Amino acid sequence: MARLDAWMTPRLAQVEAALSRWVGVDAPVRLGDAMRYAVLDGGKRLRPMLVLAASEAVGGHAQAALRAACAVELIHAYSLVHDDLPCMDNDVLRRGKPTVHVQFGEAGAMLAGDALQALAFELLVPGDGSVAPAIQAQLCRLLAGAAGSQGMAGGQAIDLASVGRSLDETQLRRMHRLKTGALLQCSVEMGAACALAPVAADVLAALRDYGAALGLAFQVVDDILDATADSATLGKTAGKDAAADKPTYVSLLGLEAARCEAAQLLALALAALDRVPHAPALGPALDTQVLRALARMVVERDY
Amino acid sequence: MARLDAWMTPRLAQVEAALSRWVGVDAPVRLGDAMRYAVLDGGKRLRPMLVLAASEAVGGHAQAALRAACAVELIHAYSLVHDDLPCMDNDVLRRGKPTVHVQFGEAGAMLAGDALQALAFELLVPGDGSVAPAIQAQLCRLLAGAAGSQGMAGGQAIDLASVGRSLDETQLRRMHRLKTGALLQCSVEMGAACALAPVAADVLAALRDYGAALGLAFQVVDDILDATADSATLGKTAGKDAAADKPTYVSLLGLEAARCEAAQLLALALAALDRVPHAPALGPALDTQVLRALARMVVERDY
Repeated sequence: MARLDAWMTPRLAQVEAALSRWVGVDAPVRLGDAMRYAVLDGGKRLRPMLVLAASEAVGGHAQAALRAACAVELIHAYSLVHDDLPCMDNDVLRRGKPTVHVQFGEAGAMLAGDALQALAFELLVPGDGSVAPAIQAQLCRLLAGAAGSQGMAGGQAIDLASVGRSLDETQLRRMHRLKTGALLQCSVEMGAACALAPVAADVLAALRDYGAALGLAFQVVDDILDATADSATLGKTAGKDAAADKPTYVSLLGLEAARCEAAQLLALALAALDRVPHAPALGPALDTQVLRALARMVVERDY
Repeated sequence: MARLDAWMTPRLAQVEAALSRWVGVDAPVRLGDAMRYAVLDGGKRLRPMLVLAASEAVGGHAQAALRAACAVELIHAYSLVHDDLPCMDNDVLRRGKPTVHVQFGEAGAMLAGDALQALAFELLVPGDGSVAPAIQAQLCRLLAGAAGSQGMAGGQAIDLASVGRSLDETQLRRMHRLKTGALLQCSVEMGAACALAPVAADVLAALRDYGAALGLAFQVVDDILDATADSATLGKTAGKDAAADKPTYVSLLGLEAARCEAAQLLALALAALDRVPHAPALGPALDTQVLRALARMVVERDY
């Protein structure tokens, strides 16, 4: 983990600096403030780290990867802003601070979320010639697919419809695959899409499988933490899924089985990376050490 | 106008068919229903017509233009869904039907809007090789800029902050330039961006100026209609700006001066098109007749 920290620290700083440079600048004043409030000074930046790690593994274009890293974080941030609104989860605490609508009103929060989604796509398509159009278009394609009705928004709609109902394990998995999994998997795929030279189809498939397993593992662990940690540790309201009578992996499988599921998904993610050639004899050498460490971090985190 | 109708009728049918094919398909069921409800069977499709007319004027890629036409309409549609929510305008009638949140609940409406925005960008970046990546990226660039904090969402934030305040004419114009103007101007620019051969910079500038004048004219006429027409004719609640104590061109300038302003903006839009070479001797012949007729339609409409 010390090695992962050494890798992450400068990259986290780079992402924070880029977000601060790009978010809410030149926006009408209260809108810009709300956008920055929603994005800056908080968040683990897991999705940006996945983008950067995947990009580095395939020899990606650094500027494209930084833009993709920030873009996927903006989609994540906007989804939290909208998710916290009274008509959705009605949550008042996020990342240890009052939620955006508590601070800026409901309309202000909704608009800030809307503007963050647009900005995510804007970041992916710089007009300065720094990133090849084919990479720009592919990044937009991946992000739009993961954010929309067949991805994150679709998962939230299923979530919304499931309150008070009983989902079986298959349905719960489908919901989370869309709601949180799609964007996490997309992070890995966006990183791979920054490659300057074509990436072999089987390597792309392995990275996609890694992302899918990681995405589901993330949600299982989230459910475990929601049931076991306190609000202060989480920086958000704990136990709210149970309070809202929402199905979770814990409510469905029990705590022990959920922990077992998380461990299995971690193993699956790591096994997918084993399919990526890491010695020159097997193809271009790709270093997947950071991706491995990130997967372990996701499953072993305690907040 | 008969000639414009002959031009519009098949293109409206084409846009409706494309929207029906692309919107809310394969989405979780209630989300897909809400998306389709928000988009289909209503709307004048002014923005799509501007995209197609501009694209045809410059010899654009037909498939790219159709995608751009639908994408800009989705951004427009999502903004109406969010704008109608209780925390914003709290409106119950739109295009003669109950608004989306009346039909699908507030959370359902918010998610449908979010998913429509993502879908707009998804439409612009087909992965089938049918549209050149450079055109895809440029279309995303234009749409993201026009939709976000320095465009439509920014204008809505200014609008929100202006309720009950007095804006002067400059401030009102800035608000509308962002809130409705940006997307209308963007429609023209997206059409031009579908060009298969490079378009001269002065032609692009002329089209942009046309779009800007048209965009502002549209809003002035909207304000006039809000003050003079009834709800049945408009298909939405009339007089709501005055009721909400929102500044409008009519409240600021008076009805006659607002009408005068609309006429001047129409003249400005048409004058911009005069700068586009329309005879082969002056460059490639560009037919701006449809764009001219659309501008007249915008100013002379009664709903």
